[in-house]
Amino acid sequence: MLVLGIDPGTALTGYGVVRGARGSILTPVCHGCIRTESDWPLARKLQAVYQEVSRIITESRPDAVAVEELFFNQNARTAIAVAQGRGVTLLAAAEAGCPVFEYPPLAVKRAVTGNGRATKEQVRYMVQHLLRLQTLPSPDDAADALACAICHLNTSLTITAYNAAPLDRGLGR
Amino acid sequence: MLVLGIDPGTALTGYGVVRGARGSILTPVCHGCIRTESDWPLARKLQAVYQEVSRIITESRPDAVAVEELFFNQNARTAIAVAQGRGVTLLAAAEAGCPVFEYPPLAVKRAVTGNGRATKEQVRYMVQHLLRLQTLPSPDDAADALACAICHLNTSLTITAYNAAPLDRGLGR
Repeated sequence: MLVLGIDPGTALTGYGVVRGARGSILTPVCHGCIRTESDWPLARKLQAVYQEVSRIITESRPDAVAVEELFFNQNARTAIAVAQGRGVTLLAAAEAGCPVFEYPPLAVKRAVTGNGRATKEQVRYMVQHLLRLQTLPSPDDAADALACAICHLNTSLTITAYNAAPLDRGLGR
Repeated sequence: MLVLGIDPGTALTGYGVVRGARGSILTPVCHGCIRTESDWPLARKLQAVYQEVSRIITESRPDAVAVEELFFNQNARTAIAVAQGRGVTLLAAAEAGCPVFEYPPLAVKRAVTGNGRATKEQVRYMVQHLLRLQTLPSPDDAADALACAICHLNTSLTITAYNAAPLDRGLGR
């Protein structure tokens, strides 16, 4: 099962594709970030996000797209931008006939760290560990997208031992 | 000059097409509302909005699309829904190669009523009057979309006398 996780936005959109199967380890396929220029008109930014997400779906052919639910504890201007970017991201999935799953931020953090209140650093560290990446996933948006994909795999496959490597280092808790 | 005004949303998206030329009266071309079912998944709702807005642009071939800017004085859940719908609306315009213009709600209200704090009823009444519609435009979302199109025509053509009919009835102010 192949899952595309997305951390939506208009300036930065994180994405990460992860492969998983019941009882097997998780395999990272690709991850990165779609960037738009700050001086572009909004419609052009949204078009760039839509076209790039569509391209990633066409190339990676995921079985599902996983996206975080939105909560408005943040700055209103940021919230509007994220929601508009999220709209075209969900549209790209729908136009490609790809089912969309939405998870609350708490569930995504808990899925990778065991703690719904984990910091961004803890999420990045655990994503690197679970996917056996050589380096910390960068930027944060890509790490969050990979975490979202892992959350969906975790939920839908009920993976109990998705990584054979012992968790020998803690999260500093 | 043909302008498509949009009042974005995910449950209800108002639209209205208005034709105008420097010094001439405004002509309504069409207006209405795109409705989605409350039990549809969000991605399907956004897809329906995108496809309908794209269809309206293809059929009416506007020179510009005018949309209200978003302000977050409202309920957060509503704000998220509107912003997501707004994202796919702007995308539809960009994909059709149609320039997008954004106006603050105050500017739209002032353009049709002369008062940036006008009520919804005053906006509907003035839209009916300016476009010489037989009945009040319905629903509110369609009236707001027509007001947005009029605002853009007003701004870009600097129409000074867009309706020859005397304003014999006031707005109850």
